[in-house]
Amino acid sequence: CVLNISKGFLIRLRYILGEDDDMPTPTLFTEMDTLQHDGDEMEWKESARWVKFEEKVEEGGERWSKPHVSTLTLHSLFELRTCIQTGSVLLDLEGYSLPQIVDDIVDRQVADGLIGPELREKVSFVLLRKHRHQHKKPIHLSLADMGKSNNSPTNPAQSRSMNDISDKPSTDQMKNKFMKKIPRDAEASNVLIGEVDFLDKPFVAFVRLAQATTLGGLTEVPVPTRFLFVLLGPHGKGKSYNEIGRAIATLMVDDLFSDVAYKARDRDDLIAGIDEFLDEVIVLPPGEWDPKIRIEPPKKVPSADMRKSVLNLNELGQVNGTGTAGGPGGGEDEEMFCGGLWLDIKRKVPWILSDFSQGFHIQSISAVLFIYLGCITNAITFGGLLGDATDNYQGVMESFLGTALAGTVFCLLGGQPLIILSSTGPILIFEKLLYEFCKSNTIDYMELRLWIGLHSCLQCLILVATDASYIIKYITRFTEEGFSSLISFIFISDAIKKMYYPINRVFKPDYVTTYRCECIAPDQGDHLSVTGPTLLPRVYLPSPCTYNITGLDWSQLSKKECVKYGGALLGNACKYVPDLALISFILFFGTYSMTVSLKKFKTSRYFPTKCRSLVGDFSIIISILVFCGIDYLLGLDTPKLHVPTEVKPTRPDRGWVVMPFGKNPWWVYVASAVPALLVTILIFMDQQISAVIVNRKENKLKKGCGYHLDLFWVGILMAVCSFLGLPWYVAATVISIAHIDSLKMESESSAPGEQPQFLGVREQRLTGILVFVLTGVSIFLAPVLQYIPMPVLYGVFLYMGVASLAGIQFWERIKLYLMPAKHQPDFSFLRHVPLRRVHLFTLVQIICLAVLWTLKSTVAAIIFPVMILGLMVVRKMMDLMFSQHDLAWLDDILPEKDKKKEKDGKKKKDHKRTKAAEPESDEEPKSPLPPPVKIPMDTIDLPSAPDPSVTPPTQPPV
Amino acid sequence: CVLNISKGFLIRLRYILGEDDDMPTPTLFTEMDTLQHDGDEMEWKESARWVKFEEKVEEGGERWSKPHVSTLTLHSLFELRTCIQTGSVLLDLEGYSLPQIVDDIVDRQVADGLIGPELREKVSFVLLRKHRHQHKKPIHLSLADMGKSNNSPTNPAQSRSMNDISDKPSTDQMKNKFMKKIPRDAEASNVLIGEVDFLDKPFVAFVRLAQATTLGGLTEVPVPTRFLFVLLGPHGKGKSYNEIGRAIATLMVDDLFSDVAYKARDRDDLIAGIDEFLDEVIVLPPGEWDPKIRIEPPKKVPSADMRKSVLNLNELGQVNGTGTAGGPGGGEDEEMFCGGLWLDIKRKVPWILSDFSQGFHIQSISAVLFIYLGCITNAITFGGLLGDATDNYQGVMESFLGTALAGTVFCLLGGQPLIILSSTGPILIFEKLLYEFCKSNTIDYMELRLWIGLHSCLQCLILVATDASYIIKYITRFTEEGFSSLISFIFISDAIKKMYYPINRVFKPDYVTTYRCECIAPDQGDHLSVTGPTLLPRVYLPSPCTYNITGLDWSQLSKKECVKYGGALLGNACKYVPDLALISFILFFGTYSMTVSLKKFKTSRYFPTKCRSLVGDFSIIISILVFCGIDYLLGLDTPKLHVPTEVKPTRPDRGWVVMPFGKNPWWVYVASAVPALLVTILIFMDQQISAVIVNRKENKLKKGCGYHLDLFWVGILMAVCSFLGLPWYVAATVISIAHIDSLKMESESSAPGEQPQFLGVREQRLTGILVFVLTGVSIFLAPVLQYIPMPVLYGVFLYMGVASLAGIQFWERIKLYLMPAKHQPDFSFLRHVPLRRVHLFTLVQIICLAVLWTLKSTVAAIIFPVMILGLMVVRKMMDLMFSQHDLAWLDDILPEKDKKKEKDGKKKKDHKRTKAAEPESDEEPKSPLPPPVKIPMDTIDLPSAPDPSVTPPTQPPV
Repeated sequence: CVLNISKGFLIRLRYILGEDDDMPTPTLFTEMDTLQHDGDEMEWKESARWVKFEEKVEEGGERWSKPHVSTLTLHSLFELRTCIQTGSVLLDLEGYSLPQIVDDIVDRQVADGLIGPELREKVSFVLLRKHRHQHKKPIHLSLADMGKSNNSPTNPAQSRSMNDISDKPSTDQMKNKFMKKIPRDAEASNVLIGEVDFLDKPFVAFVRLAQATTLGGLTEVPVPTRFLFVLLGPHGKGKSYNEIGRAIATLMVDDLFSDVAYKARDRDDLIAGIDEFLDEVIVLPPGEWDPKIRIEPPKKVPSADMRKSVLNLNELGQVNGTGTAGGPGGGEDEEMFCGGLWLDIKRKVPWILSDFSQGFHIQSISAVLFIYLGCITNAITFGGLLGDATDNYQGVMESFLGTALAGTVFCLLGGQPLIILSSTGPILIFEKLLYEFCKSNTIDYMELRLWIGLHSCLQCLILVATDASYIIKYITRFTEEGFSSLISFIFISDAIKKMYYPINRVFKPDYVTTYRCECIAPDQGDHLSVTGPTLLPRVYLPSPCTYNITGLDWSQLSKKECVKYGGALLGNACKYVPDLALISFILFFGTYSMTVSLKKFKTSRYFPTKCRSLVGDFSIIISILVFCGIDYLLGLDTPKLHVPTEVKPTRPDRGWVVMPFGKNPWWVYVASAVPALLVTILIFMDQQISAVIVNRKENKLKKGCGYHLDLFWVGILMAVCSFLGLPWYVAATVISIAHIDSLKMESESSAPGEQPQFLGVREQRLTGILVFVLTGVSIFLAPVLQYIPMPVLYGVFLYMGVASLAGIQFWERIKLYLMPAKHQPDFSFLRHVPLRRVHLFTLVQIICLAVLWTLKSTVAAIIFPVMILGLMVVRKMMDLMFSQHDLAWLDDILPEKDKKKEKDGKKKKDHKRTKAAEPESDEEPKSPLPPPVKIPMDTIDLPSAPDPSVTPPTQPPV
Repeated sequence: CVLNISKGFLIRLRYILGEDDDMPTPTLFTEMDTLQHDGDEMEWKESARWVKFEEKVEEGGERWSKPHVSTLTLHSLFELRTCIQTGSVLLDLEGYSLPQIVDDIVDRQVADGLIGPELREKVSFVLLRKHRHQHKKPIHLSLADMGKSNNSPTNPAQSRSMNDISDKPSTDQMKNKFMKKIPRDAEASNVLIGEVDFLDKPFVAFVRLAQATTLGGLTEVPVPTRFLFVLLGPHGKGKSYNEIGRAIATLMVDDLFSDVAYKARDRDDLIAGIDEFLDEVIVLPPGEWDPKIRIEPPKKVPSADMRKSVLNLNELGQVNGTGTAGGPGGGEDEEMFCGGLWLDIKRKVPWILSDFSQGFHIQSISAVLFIYLGCITNAITFGGLLGDATDNYQGVMESFLGTALAGTVFCLLGGQPLIILSSTGPILIFEKLLYEFCKSNTIDYMELRLWIGLHSCLQCLILVATDASYIIKYITRFTEEGFSSLISFIFISDAIKKMYYPINRVFKPDYVTTYRCECIAPDQGDHLSVTGPTLLPRVYLPSPCTYNITGLDWSQLSKKECVKYGGALLGNACKYVPDLALISFILFFGTYSMTVSLKKFKTSRYFPTKCRSLVGDFSIIISILVFCGIDYLLGLDTPKLHVPTEVKPTRPDRGWVVMPFGKNPWWVYVASAVPALLVTILIFMDQQISAVIVNRKENKLKKGCGYHLDLFWVGILMAVCSFLGLPWYVAATVISIAHIDSLKMESESSAPGEQPQFLGVREQRLTGILVFVLTGVSIFLAPVLQYIPMPVLYGVFLYMGVASLAGIQFWERIKLYLMPAKHQPDFSFLRHVPLRRVHLFTLVQIICLAVLWTLKSTVAAIIFPVMILGLMVVRKMMDLMFSQHDLAWLDDILPEKDKKKEKDGKKKKDHKRTKAAEPESDEEPKSPLPPPVKIPMDTIDLPSAPDPSVTPPTQPPV
């Protein structure tokens, strides 16, 4: 045992498949028809079909079953083997019509002595009976004939093909929508299985036609037939015959066996093909699996290439390179001035056309609307905060214009147009500190800011020229995940913080009579006696202005008027707006959860796929519209989106251009290089790590990255924005991820049962440009936008934050803490790294995140991007704590310092990355091939072989 | 082919397994150890184990994989077969220690000439190396040694068993918690696989010990070893050896092969066992399945009985009868007076003790609290409505007392104590009409009601005596589903209707100064000029009473006081309570969705099973507590649950006992029999159909039904309640279903990977009794109950309504309308009934439901239960529209009229019911057994067999 080992079939297969393999064999569509007896009438009724997986006709249900993996019995495979051994095998038969082919088959059988000549007519008669195919009938028709079809023996949902002898496809065939599921070059193999009363032993024929030929109504679709398998036998073994039919049909759609069938020279080649198949089958023990369970097709089936490679036919297909998306240089280390920038441009130029043409897709509309709403919400939020921080030197208006300008330029010319630029927290804090410094030191803020911007731009360009972006090689999954989790957290917490509105919790319906809010004239306000039962706090105004206030009826003033004229608002109802807090909560949470549900709806069972994927793509827009509608119907006074409607600087005393000289002493121009350095680090880190996240391998980007080009434009835009007095912009992680998510492509499923595959992202510049152009013209859209309540938009923010956390391995690992080991999912890193090491790794990440979060909440936030460098240092130190093996599974390997090692490390890294990306691959993907072994049933061919139970096993030949 | 047919192995297996089969063989636990080389050291390391499914040691991950179906290669099975053929087979070896057994094995090998005597020492040495087992280490320990264990070659998470030769189980073994997953009588089979350098061909031994013996640290658990399989071989084929080891291990845990292994007389019996296994395996084609995917254990594995029955050993196990739960008489048609009642009592008496003892379980606490809250909410709702309808002749107080009384008696003495009694809609409408009739005709309502109750009681008793409950045989799934869907709808719509509160939609925060609600003195009210900007509607009071109202400061009065003293409430804030509508919505919907989520949490991956099932069982209580807490924290004035706190009739002018005579003329006593008839039908239908739903086969009730006994007590309670002036009670469908759902039992999973099975319901009287006793004493619980907001309770109602819809086939069929055929789930009725017939059937049900709903919404609701009879008529008419075949799949077959046919029909019905309950069973469950067939590899045993490719196949022997 384990020893008498040489697979006889291998030699044959090597020979026939080893011939020049330039023309791939066509895909086979297999249809199995069984002979039905209806009184004296006989006809062939379609009972199953295979494109890749099996679909069975549910007799009673008159429908196709779901596609499923064909579970065969070992017995049927062996019987099939015997069938091929004993039956007629007609290869390369010159047949142009079914009657002629049938004649040839019968002639051969008679010639071989397998049937008597007296049966010739009978067999031909049976084989030329009509073929009835399973067709789906539209539901309205079937509802119409519901009343009468009760118990009727003839089945109206199935059509008879009346022209079996014609060589033109019938209209039934042409109308069959199933055709689109079959590859265009496909050929058919027909399996005919029947019980007849005139035979006393089975009649078996395997036919390969010299030319694929349309044989009338034989096949349900107009696909020319290449193979025919016929099994007729005496009554009583229908189930067995059926299983044999399923076995040959399953074999015919097997990639390797179909090659064999196309190239077989004789019967023994076919047997060798069956033996190879048998050698590769997967066996489930009968006590651990119920054969009645239909197994759903797996997400991914192994390619037959591995099996073919055993036959030394072709090497394993090279992993075709999406590697360009990985590192900033794509492997080419051209060491020249601006080398990286030059390479980036070279990489981007060939895509110029497709950068626009690929944008024309319905998905883009959804993406544009979604990202646009995110951008203007961001612009308004940051604009408001910047306005507060800089006494309106930069306000909402500047925010809008800056976003539009920077975004459009970057998406048009940047290296990675999927990145969305936005204001970010650290910049905001920097501006705030800078303004305060200027105010207390009487330095002109705008001029200083311009100089900082110019210095920073220069520094960025130096970084570009020196190819400093290669540092991103050290940004591994550890750093990536830490950064993006943090940003997502901030997004989520900001969104939730916005939802705070006061609720009047002491309101008692019975005392409604004492609730009010009155406007009191200013002179009155001071000596008014409190009348209510201690429930009336007084609200004073900070700045009473001087107006002509005599003759005013104070009690008739509205709140705003009261404040304007310097009155005091008095009463326990003043600071509350009823229902506001709760309606906001409902809008906020409702938008979020509806978006999540609609996204999930994409994979539900209801409605056709197209409809569902449309709903899934537009889920955010639909949710926003629905909740805007609810808000409108309820008519409550929720805070709305108000965009500025006039193009003028927020602060009237500033113009659109900032002059570089004149307001500050000369040394300020030089000294501003120091704060500029901080801004540069801030910009550099924020930009590059966001780009790394966008360029993640999981996103399958095809057009490559452009770290140097990105940084170049961010630098240039800094200078431009500084001159115009607009805020500075840098890549926004969460919105960029949302942008990518909304542009993901999936393959349309081809063969029934095949799962759609993630193909990549619609990489183009159109959506980005449109988003920012729309942002620019938002000023004219104000009448529409004012219907959008802010809680709805914060709900969108919450969704963005949560969605960008999804699929991060860090989160999966955090969840592991809460799961007992036996319930944990089968992650590949869990198979290879002990759980406690995984937990430790996660713990380090959590601690880092906690430290960063704490820093972010203090004024130290300004050095926050520098902390990313800290993360990279922590990661480097983890090399001491974890083995490289563990890190390869949980993270990536850091590049080594000296050149040689770097190469090895990189190779290893790539290798490991591939492994980590394929969670199914249990062991090393390229393990040495197993030695050739022979399976015992080959002894059937060699009856003279010595009895293995007596002879001791011999040495293996290898 | 399909013809050379006789399974050689069958004869052998029939012989050895056919012996008297009184003692079942023990369950086998299989452990596979592989030889590890650590420098010069060698040791056996556990690499996989099987209880029923395979668990593999993840080497890198140092953990057990999830239990999965063993996917084998056909190749390894054939190699195993050769191994058994060529190696040493030692059966019934008298071994008491491992060294002795090893000696015996080696001796035999030397004697057979399989190894040279010079290898004796070396082989023994290897086989006696220590065994290292995979143990899970508690996480706190592993965190402690995290720092140092980096890259260390010795693995601290694994313990070495140092006492391989001892015959006492080691402490490591005893401590192993895995023991509880192994059946108590289990024996072990050990598989030892290793590569060594001194052998040039494999060393194979299969050993069965005469007595199962604990062989020191051989096995990870203290289970005595019965079988040993050893495979040592030269280096280089480790993977092959491993697969052979997995193959024998999988065989050993196969039910049939383990029988064979226990009873085998010689090597050939084992081979026959392997052949039988091979004949039954399920084969997956290599192109359609990835062997690396670990297949999760199926929900249910086929029993080996079917395979054994092929060997004519035992007949298929009889379907053991839960049939008693089906019809009212359980099949025994004793035709005597009160026969049904007598049978019911006979059926119930044996369970008296277990009716109480089975109630002691933590699940009962949750069930009691849940149902209690449902009951008091119902009591308060119906009490309030009844009070309105009868001018408080029956109010909340009567509702509480009546519920407590009727419920306690019924749960203590009724036939089906899982049924919860409650007031129902039709009764409410009847009372309302009756009271109006009495008022307009000056008849005493309470006395008339007493007489109706007495008549109705009498009629119920007549129905009991005449066994009228047998009518429920005609209540099929169609009627059941229609009724329970309708009741659930009513539940849901009532719950949602309660959620309406007005929202002040015109409130503008800016005009807060004009919002108020003032109390105006009555004389002032009429000539007050409107001051606000048309926003101040005036609210007048319906009944200004006369008080001493002089000297009141009207503006200081609360709303209630104002109304009390006859003031007018004036202002636009009067009719609104801020935030009330939305907080109610949040409480209502929050309670519902949290309950749903917590129920789902039961099947999530997080936290240990026990913890999850506790959360799942208590989901409703947890949700209620959480939302009561939220309500309390927000402190808003939401409507709360207020129960009466004093035991006295709601209307002060009635006492606790109603006198039968004196207030109405004599003919009223007689005439009341007519309305009583309506009440009787109402009660009978409502009660019996609810009981049918509770007794559904899916609930797997074991204690049988008691339709007659139920009706008996409902009748008696009617009379009692009528005397006491309490409402009438009848089974409440939705709450009863909720009661059952909260008492469902699942088997604790035994072997790793086996799915827990639904075992049935905790059938006992304790929970019901406790619920109603608690309802009775609720009067004293008022201080606690007043913290529960009504929206939370209506949320519970919503959950009850939705949950009782779940799992109804009708709903599954409605969903089919929305699904494209290819996405529809694999329901068994879809395999056997054409989709358009299914849709038609569903359409009829929907129309019936719509008609019933319309009727229910009108005054015709009073004849609503009679409509159920209408449903049954519709069902009868559907016999004309649908074939019996279709109806058998979609519904049940109606019993025929004459006795003989009835029996057939019943048989058929039972038969079909069984089919419908097992959606996996594709074809008729008891199809004729397939004829015995022989698989070709048997030719290995017969080298002289004629070449099948030359000889034409012969006739089958059968």
